[in-house]
Amino acid sequence: MSKCFLALLHPSPLFTSYRNNEESPMILRTKSIDARFPLPPGVGTDAVHRDPIYSYAATLLESSSGHVGVGLTFTLGDGNDLVCQAAEHISQSLLGRNIEEVMSELGTWQKGMADEPRYRWLGPHKGVVHLALASVTNACWDLLAKERGMALWQLLLDLGPEQVVNTLDMSYIEDVLTREAALEFLRQQLPERAARESNLQNHYPAYDTSAGWLGYDDEEVKANCNLALETGFRAIKLKVGSTDMNRDLRRLALTREAIGPNVKLMVDANQRWSLPQALQFCRRAKEFDLYWIEEPTHPDILAHKKLSGKIAPIRIAAGEHIPNRIMFKNFFQTGCLDFCQVDALRVAGVSEFIVVSLMARQFDVPVVPHVGDMGQLHQHLVVFNHVAVGHEVMFLEHIPHLRQHFVTPCRIQDGAYVLPEEPGASCDISDQAILDAKTSKRLEPVES
Amino acid sequence: MSKCFLALLHPSPLFTSYRNNEESPMILRTKSIDARFPLPPGVGTDAVHRDPIYSYAATLLESSSGHVGVGLTFTLGDGNDLVCQAAEHISQSLLGRNIEEVMSELGTWQKGMADEPRYRWLGPHKGVVHLALASVTNACWDLLAKERGMALWQLLLDLGPEQVVNTLDMSYIEDVLTREAALEFLRQQLPERAARESNLQNHYPAYDTSAGWLGYDDEEVKANCNLALETGFRAIKLKVGSTDMNRDLRRLALTREAIGPNVKLMVDANQRWSLPQALQFCRRAKEFDLYWIEEPTHPDILAHKKLSGKIAPIRIAAGEHIPNRIMFKNFFQTGCLDFCQVDALRVAGVSEFIVVSLMARQFDVPVVPHVGDMGQLHQHLVVFNHVAVGHEVMFLEHIPHLRQHFVTPCRIQDGAYVLPEEPGASCDISDQAILDAKTSKRLEPVES
Repeated sequence: MSKCFLALLHPSPLFTSYRNNEESPMILRTKSIDARFPLPPGVGTDAVHRDPIYSYAATLLESSSGHVGVGLTFTLGDGNDLVCQAAEHISQSLLGRNIEEVMSELGTWQKGMADEPRYRWLGPHKGVVHLALASVTNACWDLLAKERGMALWQLLLDLGPEQVVNTLDMSYIEDVLTREAALEFLRQQLPERAARESNLQNHYPAYDTSAGWLGYDDEEVKANCNLALETGFRAIKLKVGSTDMNRDLRRLALTREAIGPNVKLMVDANQRWSLPQALQFCRRAKEFDLYWIEEPTHPDILAHKKLSGKIAPIRIAAGEHIPNRIMFKNFFQTGCLDFCQVDALRVAGVSEFIVVSLMARQFDVPVVPHVGDMGQLHQHLVVFNHVAVGHEVMFLEHIPHLRQHFVTPCRIQDGAYVLPEEPGASCDISDQAILDAKTSKRLEPVES
Repeated sequence: MSKCFLALLHPSPLFTSYRNNEESPMILRTKSIDARFPLPPGVGTDAVHRDPIYSYAATLLESSSGHVGVGLTFTLGDGNDLVCQAAEHISQSLLGRNIEEVMSELGTWQKGMADEPRYRWLGPHKGVVHLALASVTNACWDLLAKERGMALWQLLLDLGPEQVVNTLDMSYIEDVLTREAALEFLRQQLPERAARESNLQNHYPAYDTSAGWLGYDDEEVKANCNLALETGFRAIKLKVGSTDMNRDLRRLALTREAIGPNVKLMVDANQRWSLPQALQFCRRAKEFDLYWIEEPTHPDILAHKKLSGKIAPIRIAAGEHIPNRIMFKNFFQTGCLDFCQVDALRVAGVSEFIVVSLMARQFDVPVVPHVGDMGQLHQHLVVFNHVAVGHEVMFLEHIPHLRQHFVTPCRIQDGAYVLPEEPGASCDISDQAILDAKTSKRLEPVES
């Protein structure tokens, strides 16, 4: 991909000398890509999203060393262009800057962008503009990893605690976690890290989300369950929230029968229900030994609180629509989240993901990311979470439907992710037509 | 304005006969307007927004009867175009529809738009797409009022309780307020309405926000305070959150001295502070008899809760950045909001404003709207809140800086809004150049 991208490059004289300095790569060009991938019928369907088009508003940052950092944020198609436009606006502030310098104070840059005096009104820290910030931030992380020739998970473990904390915007969470406390905590983990890393043996367990999309009929679900077990998965998620709740219960019964009593079974309602409806479902589903219920209703903090007191032993997972660290803080403080599903493509990228992970650890909540990235980016982040933050090893969601669109699609072996070795965050898109489709923003005008 | 807009109209044969039926006006064309109004130096400045450009993403809905409904949502300039694009997307669903029919089930339409399966991901119910929904919804309300030849406040009082409730999307708040309960409550208010309406005498008290923008120097603040008193205002708001807190306290002292002990004084920090900083300010500002502190920090529910327990007798106001009814519900349930500043240009328009007002009444929280509309729309809504919902008469924020851009700018007399008599929601923009600037979306292609 970077080869094609480079072919478009006409460096200005200003940077000619700079490009020879391999130690200080500068961001010469930014590009925003509106990448949409229609799916086969039924795939990706849930109670709220009936016909998704998995899409990325991707940011490309090209440096003077020839590397291209790729950052993703996820949408379902419509409005992906709005996120691209916002990302182009944000990425302009990086033009001409040295990526090592940017990363040495990424937290400050990110706060500046999130609190940009006019743009801030459109959020703050949520919606289109925050998704765009995720895309740009993730491109910065990918670029740094590529410049240093490391997989992102290796880079994250290579950085010292202070370097990590410098990439974080920790404003508005001072009441539960200060910068100093985060630094001290990360330092305390250092002696444990070698053992934790060797514990992983270059793998991280996965679970399967693609067995039971809501649009699949019973036979498809059964066949997918068998396939998941053959692939080695030990945990499966089923979509619920059908117009008729009896359909959900029937699908639950046949799934539990197909996978047996020892495989974990989760359900995901994608916010379809009101609080009373969610309560009703949980009462009726008690016999199926559910590991968690995901997004039982809107990201409504006190509804989750009320639910959590009434549905034990079923536990609550949420996060794909919790937009920022402040709202996650409120969820943690209320004690209503049993599993934190922060997604680095929903919050402001890898940096805010780390902030949320640090708070989750403090509140003893395991992190099981939602994977808008299909696991490409998060396979790196869960390693950091276990080794450097001390989170327990859980399992990472796996969704295979975009495999062919990535240069290095994640590898699953015996139901576990095999940690990537290639430099970067594994987010390079392989479709040349998509990469060529949009215009780029340039530091200097380029003759056409 | 509608004259120029009409000049662009080339009705398709499909609607020619329809246009003669004056009783059933149909929406023939939608238009999205990116209206930005630069301000003089210092005007509109606060601790977070240093150089705002007051802007509207305006939706125009033209009906077959020749009326043009105008709906506004507010931004600070950058990104206003993104909101316009989203509003164009949303308003397409109204083309060819009868406005009376649309309004008879506006709540259902609004839920459909807010939960549109792909677009929903970009919020849900917050940020750019929700602002856009506000713009379109507000245009529907304005159009209906114009079709019926009534000022919006008159229309709102003319509609029966059931008609009002049919305009509301009450999903996700069933645990505190059902449709049936809302209906019953509005019916219970009917006997009190005549007395309440006569109580207002066609006026609603106002307060002045423009005396103490953060960029104003001490002499300007003093002069503005005197001017406010002369205009009859009995309440004034001062921006705080200066880099040096001592400056805030000095400005507070001179403001209190200028207005005397009997005029209410509020402060607004625009989310500048962390929770510890907000606590520090409130301790130091105790002597100034503050009526409220507004947006002391991020819309962080539990930070507001903690603050509210510690800063009495100072009370807390917030709402301009609380994006939807669900988050307002959480604020109400937590008991941390003393004044509800819901803004019909931040939540999804007049309809969600009414939902929040109904909940506020239930939780005994007075509603004092933030006015992204400069009071043009909200002067109508506070009348409905008092007369039909039974909210106490408070005062409505007044900001004069866009007066010249409205066809019927609000009128202030003896420190109170004089209720408008012109049909509609008082949101027509007078600048012809702005109205002409953007392309419109048409039901049928129009030859150029």
